[in-house]
Amino acid sequence: MARVSQEHLDARRRQILDGAAACFARNGFHATSMQDVLKEADLSAGAVYRYFGGKEELIAAIVTEVLDTVRGILERAARESPPPTPDVLIPRALARMREQRPATLDGGEWMFPRLMIQVWTETTRSPELAVVLGEGYRDVRTAWGKVVESYQDAGLMPADADADAVARAMIALVQGFAAQMALFGGLSERTLGEGLRALMAMGRTTAGA
Amino acid sequence: MARVSQEHLDARRRQILDGAAACFARNGFHATSMQDVLKEADLSAGAVYRYFGGKEELIAAIVTEVLDTVRGILERAARESPPPTPDVLIPRALARMREQRPATLDGGEWMFPRLMIQVWTETTRSPELAVVLGEGYRDVRTAWGKVVESYQDAGLMPADADADAVARAMIALVQGFAAQMALFGGLSERTLGEGLRALMAMGRTTAGA
Repeated sequence: MARVSQEHLDARRRQILDGAAACFARNGFHATSMQDVLKEADLSAGAVYRYFGGKEELIAAIVTEVLDTVRGILERAARESPPPTPDVLIPRALARMREQRPATLDGGEWMFPRLMIQVWTETTRSPELAVVLGEGYRDVRTAWGKVVESYQDAGLMPADADADAVARAMIALVQGFAAQMALFGGLSERTLGEGLRALMAMGRTTAGA
Repeated sequence: MARVSQEHLDARRRQILDGAAACFARNGFHATSMQDVLKEADLSAGAVYRYFGGKEELIAAIVTEVLDTVRGILERAARESPPPTPDVLIPRALARMREQRPATLDGGEWMFPRLMIQVWTETTRSPELAVVLGEGYRDVRTAWGKVVESYQDAGLMPADADADAVARAMIALVQGFAAQMALFGGLSERTLGEGLRALMAMGRTTAGA
């Protein structure tokens, strides 16, 4: 009996998730069928259903993977000394996510922003997905909270700043930035970094007021 | 022949738009029929079609109205001396929008965040809506750009800051904040203001580095 290596299993799973992510990003969750996913991943139904029971499991796996990546980037940043300030960290995190899967659609457009919007709409309809996204959001907030504590330890942010409020604002920035990319395009991470730097500089210029 | 006052026409139009906004926010654009809108607004088909040709016209009118409100708030802020800093202005703008129509859903939830997500998903499908949203986004960016120039004139932000980059970051914050409200709830404008204030304070603490 032939033994299938873990590497092979992982590669197959990867192939399925990338195909599903591309379908969801392009056409939305509802307009995508499992048949579309099979075709995109170039696999048989048997091969796909061995890994995932249906669209709901696919989207949950994609969301979990993306949020795990984000959390990992933030946890590493919190351990740097000094930790990278948001105007550096956020563009860097976006660039890393772009290098990872799910990557680009056929036209070269980064898949993630469109996928994010489709996931949000589906979340307002699916209590199961709302749980998955809610848990991921909580973990990312916690990871951002550690980065903020790290800023405070390094004397980069006032000790009395509300770490969770900062975490939510940072997450909002990334979410809104990705929404603008999905809706209007023509936006680089560098632009977001520039905007953040100018905002941070307001504290300096108003410090004496 | 009875003459219908402009006031009456405006009130009727208002009633239709509020009903449509509630339907779209609750169930999404695709799952809402014109029949649902008639029922929600408690009007006959004739009364509604006199004002709007269909769902597309309704959603375009709602988007235009919301973005006009945002632009008006920003244009007034740019004329204040000194202009309110983002940690004050953004929570204030959100509070004003909450006071305006479209207001709340039956359960008391603010309608706008859910509506925003539904509009975004529809925008990825509808080239007509993409044009409406794209023009509104451009106008809001321009209005934020004037606020930034006003900060610069008042010495609150470095003169060499990229005004459009700041505008995009500020819009991203509001978009992401509304997305978090729609997806996870339990978030107040005050929290966003706190987060922004701490971020602005980073410039102060890093100024000597």
